[in-house]
Amino acid sequence: MTAGAQDTLVIVGGTGPLGRGLALRFAAAGVAVVIGSRDRARAEAAAAEIRAAVPAARVEGAENADAVRRSRRIVLAMPAAGLAEFLAAVAPALAGALVIDVTVPLRVRHGFAEIVPLDGAASAGELVQACLPAARVVSAFKNLPAERLADLAEPLEGDVVLCGDDEAARTEVAALVAMLPGLRAVDAGRLANARYLEAITALLVNLNRRHKRRTSIAILGL
Amino acid sequence: MTAGAQDTLVIVGGTGPLGRGLALRFAAAGVAVVIGSRDRARAEAAAAEIRAAVPAARVEGAENADAVRRSRRIVLAMPAAGLAEFLAAVAPALAGALVIDVTVPLRVRHGFAEIVPLDGAASAGELVQACLPAARVVSAFKNLPAERLADLAEPLEGDVVLCGDDEAARTEVAALVAMLPGLRAVDAGRLANARYLEAITALLVNLNRRHKRRTSIAILGL
Repeated sequence: MTAGAQDTLVIVGGTGPLGRGLALRFAAAGVAVVIGSRDRARAEAAAAEIRAAVPAARVEGAENADAVRRSRRIVLAMPAAGLAEFLAAVAPALAGALVIDVTVPLRVRHGFAEIVPLDGAASAGELVQACLPAARVVSAFKNLPAERLADLAEPLEGDVVLCGDDEAARTEVAALVAMLPGLRAVDAGRLANARYLEAITALLVNLNRRHKRRTSIAILGL
Repeated sequence: MTAGAQDTLVIVGGTGPLGRGLALRFAAAGVAVVIGSRDRARAEAAAAEIRAAVPAARVEGAENADAVRRSRRIVLAMPAAGLAEFLAAVAPALAGALVIDVTVPLRVRHGFAEIVPLDGAASAGELVQACLPAARVVSAFKNLPAERLADLAEPLEGDVVLCGDDEAARTEVAALVAMLPGLRAVDAGRLANARYLEAITALLVNLNRRHKRRTSIAILGL
Protein backbone atom coordinates (compact mmCIF):
# COMPACT_ATOMS: atom_id res chain seq x y z
CA MET A 1 0.00 0.00 0.00
CA THR A 2 1.67 3.18 -1.20
CA ALA A 3 -0.65 5.65 0.49
CA GLY A 4 -1.46 6.26 4.11
CA ALA A 5 -5.02 5.22 4.96
CA GLN A 6 -5.56 8.70 6.40
CA ASP A 7 -5.75 10.51 3.09
CA THR A 8 -6.80 7.61 0.86
CA LEU A 9 -10.11 7.80 -0.97
CA VAL A 10 -11.72 4.46 -1.74
CA ILE A 11 -14.10 4.35 -4.66
CA VAL A 12 -16.33 1.29 -4.49
CA GLY A 13 -17.66 0.50 -7.96
CA GLY A 14 -14.78 2.58 -9.25
CA THR A 15 -14.76 0.89 -12.64
CA GLY A 16 -18.17 2.31 -13.65
CA PRO A 17 -18.30 5.60 -15.59
CA LEU A 18 -18.82 7.98 -12.66
CA GLY A 19 -16.51 6.11 -10.28
CA ARG A 20 -13.77 5.96 -12.86
CA GLY A 21 -14.12 9.66 -13.64
CA LEU A 22 -13.96 10.61 -9.97
CA ALA A 23 -10.97 8.32 -9.43
CA LEU A 24 -9.13 9.98 -12.30
CA ARG A 25 -9.88 13.51 -11.14
CA PHE A 26 -8.97 12.85 -7.52
CA ALA A 27 -5.80 11.02 -8.50
CA ALA A 28 -4.87 13.95 -10.74
CA ALA A 29 -5.46 16.25 -7.74
CA GLY A 30 -2.93 14.27 -5.72
CA VAL A 31 -5.32 12.17 -3.64
CA ALA A 32 -4.36 8.54 -3.03
CA VAL A 33 -7.14 6.43 -4.53
CA VAL A 34 -8.16 2.81 -4.17
CA ILE A 35 -10.50 1.68 -6.93
CA GLY A 36 -12.85 -1.07 -5.84
CA SER A 37 -14.64 -3.52 -8.09
CA ARG A 38 -16.37 -6.85 -7.69
CA ASP A 39 -13.50 -8.12 -9.82
CA ARG A 40 -10.02 -7.33 -8.58
CA ALA A 41 -8.43 -7.64 -12.03
CA ARG A 42 -10.85 -5.05 -13.46
CA ALA A 43 -10.06 -2.72 -10.57
CA GLU A 44 -6.34 -3.10 -11.20
CA ALA A 45 -6.80 -2.48 -14.92
CA ALA A 46 -8.72 0.74 -14.16
CA ALA A 47 -5.94 1.81 -11.77
CA ALA A 48 -3.32 1.13 -14.45
CA GLU A 49 -5.28 3.28 -16.93
CA ILE A 50 -5.25 6.16 -14.49
CA ARG A 51 -1.51 5.78 -13.89
CA ALA A 52 -1.04 5.89 -17.66
CA ALA A 53 -2.98 9.18 -17.82
CA VAL A 54 -1.45 10.64 -14.64
CA PRO A 55 2.04 9.21 -14.08
CA ALA A 56 2.29 10.63 -10.56
CA ALA A 57 -1.06 9.12 -9.55
CA ARG A 58 -1.20 7.08 -6.37
CA VAL A 59 -3.89 4.61 -7.33
CA GLU A 60 -4.45 0.93 -6.69
CA GLY A 61 -7.16 -1.61 -7.45
CA ALA A 62 -8.88 -3.93 -4.99
CA GLU A 63 -11.94 -6.09 -4.62
CA ASN A 64 -14.82 -3.98 -3.21
CA ALA A 65 -15.10 -5.77 0.12
CA ASP A 66 -11.36 -5.40 0.62
CA ALA A 67 -11.31 -1.81 -0.63
CA VAL A 68 -13.73 -0.55 2.04
CA ARG A 69 -11.20 -1.60 4.70
CA ARG A 70 -8.43 0.51 3.16
CA SER A 71 -9.65 3.92 4.30
CA ARG A 72 -12.20 5.81 6.38
CA ARG A 73 -13.28 7.78 3.29
CA ILE A 74 -15.42 5.75 0.93
CA VAL A 75 -17.23 6.77 -2.24
CA LEU A 76 -20.09 4.46 -3.19
CA ALA A 77 -20.23 4.44 -6.99
CA MET A 78 -21.65 1.02 -7.64
CA PRO A 79 -24.95 0.44 -9.49
CA ALA A 80 -28.12 1.10 -7.47
CA ALA A 81 -29.24 -2.51 -7.89
CA GLY A 82 -27.50 -4.56 -5.26
CA LEU A 83 -26.40 -1.52 -3.26
CA ALA A 84 -28.42 -2.34 -0.12
CA GLU A 85 -27.22 -5.94 -0.12
CA PHE A 86 -23.58 -4.88 -0.46
CA LEU A 87 -23.93 -2.34 2.33
CA ALA A 88 -25.48 -4.87 4.69
CA ALA A 89 -22.39 -7.01 4.24
CA VAL A 90 -19.86 -4.23 4.86
CA ALA A 91 -21.77 -2.16 7.45
CA PRO A 92 -19.58 -3.16 10.42
CA ALA A 93 -16.43 -2.07 8.56
CA LEU A 94 -17.98 1.30 7.74
CA ALA A 95 -19.05 2.31 11.25
CA GLY A 96 -17.81 5.86 11.77
CA ALA A 97 -16.48 6.15 8.22
CA LEU A 98 -17.20 9.01 5.85
CA VAL A 99 -19.37 7.48 3.13
CA ILE A 100 -20.01 9.53 0.02
CA ASP A 101 -23.13 8.46 -1.85
CA VAL A 102 -23.14 9.41 -5.54
CA THR A 103 -25.95 7.10 -6.68
CA VAL A 104 -28.91 8.26 -8.76
CA PRO A 105 -31.51 5.50 -9.14
CA LEU A 106 -32.53 6.32 -12.71
CA ARG A 107 -34.55 4.31 -15.17
CA VAL A 108 -35.26 5.32 -18.76
CA ARG A 109 -38.71 4.18 -19.86
CA HIS A 110 -40.47 5.19 -23.08
CA GLY A 111 -37.71 7.68 -23.70
CA PHE A 112 -38.15 9.38 -20.33
CA ALA A 113 -35.59 9.26 -17.54
CA GLU A 114 -37.18 8.96 -14.14
CA ILE A 115 -36.17 8.33 -10.58
CA VAL A 116 -37.25 4.97 -9.24
CA PRO A 117 -37.68 4.54 -5.49
CA LEU A 118 -34.88 2.37 -4.16
CA ASP A 119 -36.10 -0.18 -1.62
CA GLY A 120 -38.79 2.26 -0.55
CA ALA A 121 -36.37 5.04 0.38
CA ALA A 122 -37.07 8.61 -0.76
CA SER A 123 -33.51 8.83 -2.11
CA ALA A 124 -30.40 6.75 -2.56
CA GLY A 125 -28.71 8.91 0.08
CA GLU A 126 -31.33 8.06 2.67
CA LEU A 127 -31.15 4.37 1.73
CA VAL A 128 -27.38 4.37 2.26
CA GLN A 129 -27.74 6.05 5.65
CA ALA A 130 -30.45 3.55 6.65
CA CYS A 131 -28.18 0.66 5.66
CA LEU A 132 -25.19 2.22 7.44
CA PRO A 133 -26.65 3.86 10.55
CA ALA A 134 -23.19 4.25 12.11
CA ALA A 135 -21.56 5.81 9.04
CA ARG A 136 -21.36 9.51 8.28
CA VAL A 137 -23.18 9.63 4.94
CA VAL A 138 -22.93 12.57 2.55
CA SER A 139 -24.66 12.66 -0.82
CA ALA A 140 -22.61 14.50 -3.43
CA PHE A 141 -21.31 14.40 -6.99
CA LYS A 142 -24.76 13.28 -8.14
CA ASN A 143 -25.04 15.70 -11.03
CA LEU A 144 -21.57 15.42 -12.52
CA PRO A 145 -21.03 14.34 -16.10
CA ALA A 146 -19.02 11.09 -16.05
CA GLU A 147 -17.84 11.60 -19.61
CA ARG A 148 -16.38 14.99 -18.85
CA LEU A 149 -14.74 13.73 -15.69
CA ALA A 150 -13.05 11.02 -17.72
CA ASP A 151 -11.28 13.54 -19.94
CA LEU A 152 -8.74 15.62 -18.04
CA ALA A 153 -8.66 18.11 -20.93
CA GLU A 154 -12.33 18.94 -20.23
CA PRO A 155 -12.64 21.85 -17.83
CA LEU A 156 -15.21 21.47 -15.07
CA GLU A 157 -17.09 24.61 -14.15
CA GLY A 158 -20.06 24.13 -11.90
CA ASP A 159 -21.48 23.38 -8.52
CA VAL A 160 -21.41 20.17 -6.53
CA VAL A 161 -24.39 20.32 -4.23
CA LEU A 162 -23.95 18.09 -1.21
CA CYS A 163 -26.05 17.11 1.78
CA GLY A 164 -25.84 14.91 4.84
CA ASP A 165 -26.93 14.89 8.46
CA ASP A 166 -23.39 15.20 9.86
CA GLU A 167 -22.05 18.71 9.46
CA ALA A 168 -18.38 17.80 9.92
CA ALA A 169 -18.77 15.10 7.28
CA ARG A 170 -20.21 17.64 4.85
CA THR A 171 -17.25 19.91 5.53
CA GLU A 172 -14.87 17.05 4.71
CA VAL A 173 -16.63 16.43 1.41
CA ALA A 174 -16.62 20.14 0.60
CA ALA A 175 -12.85 20.08 1.09
CA LEU A 176 -12.61 17.18 -1.35
CA VAL A 177 -14.71 19.07 -3.90
CA ALA A 178 -12.43 22.08 -3.51
CA MET A 179 -9.49 19.93 -4.65
CA LEU A 180 -11.06 19.57 -8.10
CA PRO A 181 -10.37 22.72 -10.13
CA GLY A 182 -13.49 24.53 -11.33
CA LEU A 183 -15.92 22.85 -8.98
CA ARG A 184 -17.60 24.65 -6.10
CA ALA A 185 -19.15 22.83 -3.16
CA VAL A 186 -22.63 23.99 -2.17
CA ASP A 187 -23.72 22.64 1.20
CA ALA A 188 -27.47 21.95 1.22
CA GLY A 189 -27.66 20.70 4.80
CA ARG A 190 -29.81 17.69 5.65
CA LEU A 191 -29.51 14.38 3.88
CA ALA A 192 -33.21 14.48 2.96
CA ASN A 193 -32.19 16.90 0.19
CA ALA A 194 -30.63 13.95 -1.64
CA ARG A 195 -34.00 13.32 -3.32
CA TYR A 196 -33.79 16.76 -4.92
CA LEU A 197 -30.17 16.27 -6.03
CA GLU A 198 -31.21 13.01 -7.69
CA ALA A 199 -34.17 14.75 -9.36
CA ILE A 200 -31.80 17.21 -11.01
CA THR A 201 -29.95 14.36 -12.68
CA ALA A 202 -33.18 12.94 -14.12
CA LEU A 203 -33.96 16.38 -15.52
CA LEU A 204 -30.47 16.71 -17.03
CA VAL A 205 -30.74 13.33 -18.72
CA ASN A 206 -34.06 14.34 -20.24
CA LEU A 207 -32.60 17.66 -21.38
CA ASN A 208 -29.73 15.86 -23.05
CA ARG A 209 -32.00 13.35 -24.75
CA ARG A 210 -34.14 16.15 -26.10
CA HIS A 211 -31.34 18.46 -27.22
CA LYS A 212 -28.90 15.75 -28.23
CA ARG A 213 -26.12 17.58 -26.44
CA ARG A 214 -25.00 18.41 -22.93
CA THR A 215 -27.26 21.07 -21.50
CA SER A 216 -26.04 22.99 -18.49
CA ILE A 217 -28.54 24.89 -16.39
CA ALA A 218 -28.04 27.95 -14.23
CA ILE A 219 -30.62 28.32 -11.49
CA LEU A 220 -31.03 31.72 -9.89
CA GLY A 221 -31.11 31.80 -6.11
CA LEU A 222 -34.63 32.28 -4.78
CA MET B 1 -60.06 46.58 -22.05
CA THR B 2 -57.03 48.32 -23.41
CA ALA B 3 -55.31 45.26 -24.85
CA GLY B 4 -56.33 42.81 -27.55
CA ALA B 5 -57.06 39.37 -26.13
CA GLN B 6 -54.55 37.96 -28.61
CA ASP B 7 -51.45 39.18 -26.85
CA THR B 8 -52.83 39.50 -23.34
CA LEU B 9 -51.35 37.40 -20.57
CA VAL B 10 -53.70 36.58 -17.72
CA ILE B 11 -52.12 35.83 -14.36
CA VAL B 12 -54.55 34.00 -12.11
CA GLY B 13 -53.50 34.47 -8.51
CA GLY B 14 -51.55 37.46 -9.73
CA THR B 15 -51.54 39.16 -6.34
CA GLY B 16 -49.30 36.50 -4.74
CA PRO B 17 -45.54 37.05 -4.72
CA LEU B 18 -44.63 35.05 -7.85
CA GLY B 19 -47.70 36.13 -9.83
CA ARG B 20 -47.12 39.77 -8.96
CA GLY B 21 -43.46 39.52 -9.95
CA LEU B 22 -44.27 37.91 -13.27
CA ALA B 23 -47.00 40.49 -13.94
CA LEU B 24 -44.54 43.31 -13.31
CA ARG B 25 -41.81 41.84 -15.50
CA PHE B 26 -44.15 41.02 -18.38
CA ALA B 27 -45.83 44.41 -18.16
CA ALA B 28 -42.40 46.06 -18.24
CA ALA B 29 -41.61 43.97 -21.34
CA GLY B 30 -44.65 45.44 -23.08
CA VAL B 31 -47.05 42.53 -22.65
CA ALA B 32 -50.66 43.38 -21.83
CA VAL B 33 -51.44 41.76 -18.50
CA VAL B 34 -54.63 40.97 -16.64
CA ILE B 35 -54.03 40.25 -12.97
CA GLY B 36 -56.58 37.88 -11.51
CA SER B 37 -57.47 37.52 -7.85
CA ARG B 38 -60.32 36.06 -5.84
CA ASP B 39 -60.95 39.65 -4.87
CA ARG B 40 -61.33 42.11 -7.72
CA ALA B 41 -60.31 45.11 -5.63
CA ARG B 42 -57.03 43.45 -4.67
CA ALA B 43 -56.39 42.64 -8.33
CA GLU B 44 -57.00 46.24 -9.30
CA ALA B 45 -54.74 47.50 -6.53
CA ALA B 46 -51.94 45.22 -7.77
CA ALA B 47 -52.49 46.49 -11.31
CA ALA B 48 -52.29 50.08 -10.10
CA GLU B 49 -49.00 49.34 -8.33
CA ILE B 50 -47.55 48.03 -11.55
CA ARG B 51 -48.73 51.08 -13.46
CA ALA B 52 -47.02 53.21 -10.84
CA ALA B 53 -43.74 51.34 -11.39
CA VAL B 54 -44.11 51.13 -15.18
CA PRO B 55 -46.15 54.07 -16.47
CA ALA B 56 -46.50 52.54 -19.95
CA ALA B 57 -47.78 49.24 -18.57
CA ARG B 58 -50.96 47.81 -19.99
CA VAL B 59 -52.30 46.07 -16.93
CA GLU B 60 -55.74 45.53 -15.46
CA GLY B 61 -57.21 43.68 -12.53
CA ALA B 62 -60.10 41.22 -12.57
CA GLU B 63 -61.70 38.51 -10.50
CA ASN B 64 -60.01 35.15 -11.30
CA ALA B 65 -63.02 33.50 -12.92
CA ASP B 66 -63.51 36.55 -15.13
CA ALA B 67 -59.79 36.91 -15.85
CA VAL B 68 -59.47 33.45 -17.42
CA ARG B 69 -61.97 34.52 -20.10
CA ARG B 70 -59.88 37.53 -21.09
CA SER B 71 -57.17 35.69 -23.02
CA ARG B 72 -56.05 32.33 -24.37
CA ARG B 73 -52.76 32.63 -22.43
CA ILE B 74 -53.16 31.97 -18.75
CA VAL B 75 -50.56 31.77 -15.99
CA LEU B 76 -51.73 29.85 -12.91
CA ALA B 77 -50.05 31.47 -9.94
CA MET B 78 -52.55 30.77 -7.22
CA PRO B 79 -51.74 28.74 -4.08
CA ALA B 80 -51.58 24.97 -4.54
CA ALA B 81 -54.39 24.45 -2.05
CA GLY B 82 -57.64 24.94 -3.89
CA LEU B 83 -56.02 24.76 -7.33
CA ALA B 84 -57.82 21.59 -8.46
CA GLU B 85 -61.18 22.93 -7.32
CA PHE B 86 -60.66 26.22 -9.14
CA LEU B 87 -59.59 24.43 -12.31
CA ALA B 88 -62.63 22.16 -12.28
CA ALA B 89 -64.81 25.27 -12.31
CA VAL B 90 -63.02 27.00 -15.18
CA ALA B 91 -62.05 23.96 -17.29
CA PRO B 92 -64.57 24.62 -20.08
CA ALA B 93 -63.29 28.18 -20.54
CA LEU B 94 -59.71 26.92 -20.79
CA ALA B 95 -60.22 24.29 -23.50
CA GLY B 96 -57.49 24.87 -26.09
CA ALA B 97 -55.87 27.65 -24.06
CA LEU B 98 -52.18 27.90 -23.26
CA VAL B 99 -52.00 27.34 -19.50
CA ILE B 100 -48.70 28.06 -17.77
CA ASP B 101 -48.33 26.24 -14.47
CA VAL B 102 -45.86 27.86 -12.07
CA THR B 103 -46.94 26.06 -8.90
CA VAL B 104 -44.55 24.33 -6.53
CA PRO B 105 -46.41 22.40 -3.82
CA LEU B 106 -43.96 23.09 -1.00
CA ARG B 107 -44.30 22.58 2.70
CA VAL B 108 -41.73 23.54 5.32
CA ARG B 109 -41.72 21.09 8.20
CA HIS B 110 -39.16 20.92 11.00
CA GLY B 111 -37.08 23.48 9.09
CA PHE B 112 -37.01 21.41 5.92
CA ALA B 113 -38.75 22.40 2.69
CA GLU B 114 -40.25 19.43 0.93
CA ILE B 115 -42.54 18.72 -1.98
CA VAL B 116 -45.96 17.40 -0.98
CA PRO B 117 -47.91 15.33 -3.48
CA LEU B 118 -50.86 17.37 -4.72
CA ASP B 119 -54.04 15.30 -4.94
CA GLY B 120 -51.93 12.24 -5.69
CA ALA B 121 -50.28 13.75 -8.79
CA ALA B 122 -46.53 13.40 -9.26
CA SER B 123 -46.28 17.14 -9.88
CA ALA B 124 -48.40 20.27 -9.96
CA GLY B 125 -47.92 20.37 -13.73
CA GLU B 126 -49.43 16.94 -14.15
CA LEU B 127 -52.28 17.81 -11.80
CA VAL B 128 -53.10 20.89 -13.87
CA GLN B 129 -53.08 18.91 -17.10
CA ALA B 130 -55.29 16.23 -15.51
CA CYS B 131 -57.77 18.90 -14.40
CA LEU B 132 -57.65 20.61 -17.81
CA PRO B 133 -57.35 17.78 -20.33
CA ALA B 134 -58.24 20.07 -23.24
CA ALA B 135 -55.75 22.82 -22.31
CA ARG B 136 -52.18 23.06 -23.53
CA VAL B 137 -50.30 22.99 -20.22
CA VAL B 138 -46.69 24.08 -19.87
CA SER B 139 -44.85 24.09 -16.54
CA ALA B 140 -42.39 26.97 -16.31
CA PHE B 141 -41.09 29.77 -14.08
CA LYS B 142 -41.03 27.32 -11.17
CA ASN B 143 -37.57 28.22 -9.94
CA LEU B 144 -37.70 32.01 -10.20
CA PRO B 145 -37.16 34.22 -7.18
CA ALA B 146 -40.36 36.20 -6.61
CA GLU B 147 -38.51 38.83 -4.62
CA ARG B 148 -36.08 39.54 -7.42
CA LEU B 149 -38.85 39.63 -9.98
CA ALA B 150 -40.60 42.26 -7.91
CA ASP B 151 -37.66 44.65 -8.14
CA LEU B 152 -37.06 45.87 -11.68
CA ALA B 153 -33.61 47.07 -10.66
CA GLU B 154 -32.62 43.44 -9.96
CA PRO B 155 -31.05 41.85 -13.03
CA LEU B 156 -32.23 38.34 -13.83
CA GLU B 157 -29.57 36.01 -15.19
CA GLY B 158 -30.52 32.38 -15.39
CA ASP B 159 -32.46 29.61 -17.01
CA VAL B 160 -36.18 29.02 -17.07
CA VAL B 161 -36.61 25.30 -17.60
CA LEU B 162 -39.99 24.48 -19.08
CA CYS B 163 -41.86 21.33 -19.99
CA GLY B 164 -45.18 20.25 -21.43
CA ASP B 165 -46.64 17.64 -23.72
CA ASP B 166 -47.55 20.11 -26.50
CA GLU B 167 -44.47 21.19 -28.40
CA ALA B 168 -46.06 24.30 -29.94
CA ALA B 169 -47.20 25.40 -26.50
CA ARG B 170 -43.66 25.03 -25.18
CA THR B 171 -42.41 27.19 -28.05
CA GLU B 172 -44.94 29.87 -27.13
CA VAL B 173 -43.75 29.87 -23.54
CA ALA B 174 -40.11 29.97 -24.65
CA ALA B 175 -40.98 33.10 -26.66
CA LEU B 176 -42.51 34.65 -23.52
CA VAL B 177 -39.37 33.82 -21.53
CA ALA B 178 -37.25 35.43 -24.22
CA MET B 179 -39.09 38.72 -23.65
CA LEU B 180 -37.63 38.94 -20.14
CA PRO B 181 -34.05 40.25 -20.35
CA GLY B 182 -31.42 37.91 -18.92
CA LEU B 183 -33.58 34.80 -18.83
CA ARG B 184 -33.02 31.84 -21.16
CA ALA B 185 -35.69 29.25 -21.88
CA VAL B 186 -34.55 25.64 -21.66
CA ASP B 187 -37.07 23.22 -23.14
CA ALA B 188 -37.10 19.95 -21.20
CA GLY B 189 -39.78 18.22 -23.28
CA ARG B 190 -42.46 16.18 -21.58
CA LEU B 191 -44.65 17.50 -18.81
CA ALA B 192 -43.57 14.64 -16.54
CA ASN B 193 -40.37 16.63 -15.96
CA ALA B 194 -42.43 19.08 -13.89
CA ARG B 195 -41.72 16.93 -10.81
CA TYR B 196 -38.00 17.60 -11.27
CA LEU B 197 -38.49 21.34 -11.78
CA GLU B 198 -40.47 21.43 -8.55
CA ALA B 199 -37.74 19.46 -6.76
CA ILE B 200 -35.20 22.13 -7.68
CA THR B 201 -37.26 24.76 -5.89
CA ALA B 202 -37.39 22.68 -2.72
CA LEU B 203 -33.61 22.37 -2.86
CA LEU B 204 -33.19 26.13 -3.41
CA VAL B 205 -35.40 26.93 -0.44
CA ASN B 206 -33.31 24.62 1.74
CA LEU B 207 -30.11 26.18 0.43
CA ASN B 208 -31.40 29.63 1.28
CA ARG B 209 -32.53 28.60 4.74
CA ARG B 210 -29.13 27.12 5.40
CA HIS B 211 -27.02 29.94 3.97
CA LYS B 212 -29.35 32.79 4.93
CA ARG B 213 -28.93 34.27 1.47
CA ARG B 214 -29.92 33.55 -2.10
CA THR B 215 -27.87 30.68 -3.42
CA SER B 216 -27.69 30.22 -7.17
CA ILE B 217 -26.54 26.90 -8.55
CA ALA B 218 -24.88 26.11 -11.86
CA ILE B 219 -25.34 22.53 -12.97
CA LEU B 220 -22.97 21.18 -15.60
CA GLY B 221 -24.57 19.34 -18.52
CA LEU B 222 -24.19 15.59 -18.20
